[in-house]
Amino acid sequence: MKFTINKEVFTKDLLNVCRIIQPNNVNPILQTVKLVLDNSGLTLTGSNGDLSISQNIPLFLGDKEIIRDVRQGGVLINAKIICDIVRKIDGNEVTFELLDDSVAKIANDKTVFKLNSIRVEEYQDIDFGEEGTEIKLKREEFVNAINEVSFAASQKSSRPALTAINFVGENNLLVLTATDGARLANRTLSVDIKDRFNANIPSKTLVESLKSVTNEEFIKLFISDKKILMVFNDSLIVSRLISGEYPNTKNIIPKSFSYYLEVNASEFLNAIDRVSLLSVDRENVVKITMNETKVEISSKSQQYGSAVESLNLFKYQGERLEISFNSEFVTSAIKALRSEDVLISFIAEMKPFTITNKKDENIIQLITPVRTY
Amino acid sequence: MKFTINKEVFTKDLLNVCRIIQPNNVNPILQTVKLVLDNSGLTLTGSNGDLSISQNIPLFLGDKEIIRDVRQGGVLINAKIICDIVRKIDGNEVTFELLDDSVAKIANDKTVFKLNSIRVEEYQDIDFGEEGTEIKLKREEFVNAINEVSFAASQKSSRPALTAINFVGENNLLVLTATDGARLANRTLSVDIKDRFNANIPSKTLVESLKSVTNEEFIKLFISDKKILMVFNDSLIVSRLISGEYPNTKNIIPKSFSYYLEVNASEFLNAIDRVSLLSVDRENVVKITMNETKVEISSKSQQYGSAVESLNLFKYQGERLEISFNSEFVTSAIKALRSEDVLISFIAEMKPFTITNKKDENIIQLITPVRTY
Repeated sequence: MKFTINKEVFTKDLLNVCRIIQPNNVNPILQTVKLVLDNSGLTLTGSNGDLSISQNIPLFLGDKEIIRDVRQGGVLINAKIICDIVRKIDGNEVTFELLDDSVAKIANDKTVFKLNSIRVEEYQDIDFGEEGTEIKLKREEFVNAINEVSFAASQKSSRPALTAINFVGENNLLVLTATDGARLANRTLSVDIKDRFNANIPSKTLVESLKSVTNEEFIKLFISDKKILMVFNDSLIVSRLISGEYPNTKNIIPKSFSYYLEVNASEFLNAIDRVSLLSVDRENVVKITMNETKVEISSKSQQYGSAVESLNLFKYQGERLEISFNSEFVTSAIKALRSEDVLISFIAEMKPFTITNKKDENIIQLITPVRTY
Repeated sequence: MKFTINKEVFTKDLLNVCRIIQPNNVNPILQTVKLVLDNSGLTLTGSNGDLSISQNIPLFLGDKEIIRDVRQGGVLINAKIICDIVRKIDGNEVTFELLDDSVAKIANDKTVFKLNSIRVEEYQDIDFGEEGTEIKLKREEFVNAINEVSFAASQKSSRPALTAINFVGENNLLVLTATDGARLANRTLSVDIKDRFNANIPSKTLVESLKSVTNEEFIKLFISDKKILMVFNDSLIVSRLISGEYPNTKNIIPKSFSYYLEVNASEFLNAIDRVSLLSVDRENVVKITMNETKVEISSKSQQYGSAVESLNLFKYQGERLEISFNSEFVTSAIKALRSEDVLISFIAEMKPFTITNKKDENIIQLITPVRTY
């Protein structure tokens, strides 16, 4: 196995694959990246056990030769080491050569690295097959949808299903939901689907893997009962699903409300940010006090003092209402809407409230208030 | 006590003072910043116990009114809270008012913070008096000198004197030395001094405090047997000295050598950086192999493999020599020289070598090689 490759392209694609490989994975084979060179170019494969990526670098990009002096073959190399080397080595090209069964050489005209390597046959089988329901989506729409809900997924593994984003497909709608029990984010996309499905996809790995995808206009998803496969131009990402029943969240989202507050996102977020400086006794808890002429956000600390800020831009409809909430939850939810016009709808002091954007009814953020004493 | 102050000036000076205040200092009084307003303006004082800073904000800067609506007085406020507030509050001005013995208000037209405060009399006495030997220096020269040696000071407190920069003044020379036992940095400055002195100044706090000083052309130092005082236009910084004998380093620096290597700093540092990728078994150890026609830097890891890089730009004088060293030590030393032309002078394989810059003989970096097996 031997090749000389454009360093810029090699670096970019190698880093995409290395990003998900864990240097300390308990399985030493998963600390490596698999390099396979054949007629279709160089294929890089990496995995963290849950999520795997396969990235192809073609021999030519248009008229431009990316890989030359090709002798086919395959090998496994420690991912961290090869990524660090390729990132730091000088020059426009780098030459890779498998010297024997256990040593690979990476070199340019002044630097020579000889790396211990592992035979390619030792790598585990990863199923990148196109099985299950197929969905075609605009990449931007899909990435936005994931970012709109992923932050609300649980960080704790005590209820594994809650660390996932729940994907439900039916009636030509794809509904994404994430919740940690105290807040919930819900996005509906119109798609062309045949079969009904309900799958829990690990939120963290999904967000991480999508960072590497920037150029495509469309992506394809294949969702089966075992895995989700994402198909891009030159790469495949496959993730296992999380087993276990996802809570039925359909009936949690309220339909009718008694109080409505419209705010300007920037002013509201800045006010929360400032007032939160004093919410140190109970972390992140701030209070909002509303009537038709005045909206105030406040917080109080036994040790340090208190903060009050009044909004200039708002429209409030309803009786006087006072609600305390986790400022970090509200801040993340509003940021995910990506809109300056924000509508917050309340039922009562201790009932969950929704944060929405009048221009797009297909995304709903739901937050449970905090009890104050 | 009351004043309305230009927010930009207040923020900048407050952050300078807050930088050295430790939010978790065991002494709660030292978690606060002292604000005193009188005819000379607003004076901010902060301390971490070892190092203290006093920063004056005058009522006027030239024609520009910085502080208005003045009612004199003083108070102590939690430093972290007031710094966060002033950094985040909106507008060009902020108003501060002491409401009673225990509450201070900081406000603009839409946000009101009421902060618990402490009576100014509770603050500890800090001696900012101008005592001892006086030295006047160009600020840039002094700051550069500190940066040239400070990194070589020990990080461990097992030998407190080694965590200091040693200042020795005599014969109109100021000699700064820092060493952690395995490397040493030494800078000589020409200054106008009367008395001999030898003082150990904590390296970490000195570096930290000088970050806030950017505008002055000259600074004055007053060194006594208890403290060092640094006098700037609008601020004073005082640091306690570290007691204990500093090792006699004069005889450690060799005068004659048998091997000389001249390198280009950038090429040499990049080569070390790349080769270090494989120095994982013994952290940071790389080897340099030199003769008159070839200079190679190399490293080896049992687990991952090996790296070799040859230099293009060098001049070597002497027999063949092989020396192993801590790459981080050599890298820091060369960076501190701030010169592309670097001279490395060796005596023998296991003897300390010097790193210098032919154009400036008043700075010497000394490094002990590493034994390899």
